[in-house]
Amino acid sequence: MCSDRPDRAAPGDVLDDLISRVRELEDRLAIYQLIASYGPAVDSESAGAVAELWSEDGVYDPDGVEPYVGSEAVGRLVGGSLHQDYLRAGCAHVLSLPVVRVDGDTAVAVNHSRVYLHDGDGWRLERVSANRWELSRGNGSWRVDRRTNRLLNGSAQARALLAAGNDHE
Amino acid sequence: MCSDRPDRAAPGDVLDDLISRVRELEDRLAIYQLIASYGPAVDSESAGAVAELWSEDGVYDPDGVEPYVGSEAVGRLVGGSLHQDYLRAGCAHVLSLPVVRVDGDTAVAVNHSRVYLHDGDGWRLERVSANRWELSRGNGSWRVDRRTNRLLNGSAQARALLAAGNDHE
Amino acid sequence: MCSDRPDRAAPGDVLDDLISRVRELEDRLAIYQLIASYGPAVDSESAGAVAELWSEDGVYDPDGVEPYVGSEAVGRLVGGSLHQDYLRAGCAHVLSLPVVRVDGDTAVAVNHSRVYLHDGDGWRLERVSANRWELSRGNGSWRVDRRTNRLLNGSAQARALLAAGNDHE
Repeated sequence: MCSDRPDRAAPGDVLDDLISRVRELEDRLAIYQLIASYGPAVDSESAGAVAELWSEDGVYDPDGVEPYVGSEAVGRLVGGSLHQDYLRAGCAHVLSLPVVRVDGDTAVAVNHSRVYLHDGDGWRLERVSANRWELSRGNGSWRVDRRTNRLLNGSAQARALLAAGNDHE
Repeated sequence: MCSDRPDRAAPGDVLDDLISRVRELEDRLAIYQLIASYGPAVDSESAGAVAELWSEDGVYDPDGVEPYVGSEAVGRLVGGSLHQDYLRAGCAHVLSLPVVRVDGDTAVAVNHSRVYLHDGDGWRLERVSANRWELSRGNGSWRVDRRTNRLLNGSAQARALLAAGNDHE
Repeated sequence: MCSDRPDRAAPGDVLDDLISRVRELEDRLAIYQLIASYGPAVDSESAGAVAELWSEDGVYDPDGVEPYVGSEAVGRLVGGSLHQDYLRAGCAHVLSLPVVRVDGDTAVAVNHSRVYLHDGDGWRLERVSANRWELSRGNGSWRVDRRTNRLLNGSAQARALLAAGNDHE
């Protein structure tokens, strides 16, 4: 016996349990990091950094435009005319702390996003949206497989996206 | 001896220390998850999901209305006429990353919340508030015992709520 | 042998690996906590709590005013006439979930900040900014060595600050 506490679980089992708990914490924080990276990446016009958040054939489906299919297409949105107008005016894409549910190598996250736009002397809210993120782990790191974004303008679709955040445990 | 490093703490003590550190991280992230769940739950009109964030006799004391007492009463707020108006217009209840202090089986968290409301072509800030959350662990999971929310409109009461976030360690 | 699983790494090595992974998680959460503390501290007029977030000779370089040099000077900003006007009106300094990269005893974090100001019947966006935080660990706790903040009003400087959030892993 390695332990002088014979009433405890074997050290190997305790370690295995701890390793899986640490992995869960790491997964959750990796997904926070991924989602928190989106705003700084698009607001700094960093196409490559945006692209690398998505898995190779991942999809970004924002409200009101055709979905971007594939990580490179998602990254190229920063060069689009709408985004270029935003950058020239001054924009902030801010994503809130997400609710995250991890299930093995896949996860679902739900949060709000806002686009603030500089306008005259101040800023105005250009978009306020519901977001549902489907993520997966590939080659050891988490990527976005699908982000769906709908404006919170009273639409039932936006509300339905947020319902995926329920069942928080 | 189980280890070839005789100058180190016994593996059992190292493990105990690690287990308590992992539990602290889990507590903090569980509280993040709990607080991040509120917005998606109310914005998707999910009374049950809102109720389950609170402990059975927990209280939500927002500014300007009578406190909701008991988790079911808190959940029922989504069916109230004010919230129904919000949902029809399009609303986003967004809670910021909280400062969290855990002390055994209780915790205090402090953060800001905002209610964005769709209005005409854009969105406006309907409420900007200070929040103080008192939480406790029961049956292994964290619940809200009391959330106090005051509008940041210059009132000393709102400022006092935020002072609970000091002493960050 | 301490383990009946001879094909596994020695328990000591597994523990060392786990300890370093837990420390990484703790670092990241300590930095979240530090950054999340800023808003509640300034909005509750808590000069001491603001000061203690910075290292003794740390700098806060906001847009449009002279940098505050030294933690005490940073704390004293809450007594300045601009901030006093904010407090009287009702203000919320809200910082978004940061992207954090830790490298040993130093770290860089990037996020957005907003100042909401009560104005008439509602609130308006007084400032929307890009932030780059340089942090270090001293005496076991993380402190801010330099926070640089630039308004997102179309300036290239603000965009450049946010680019430090790329390379998210």
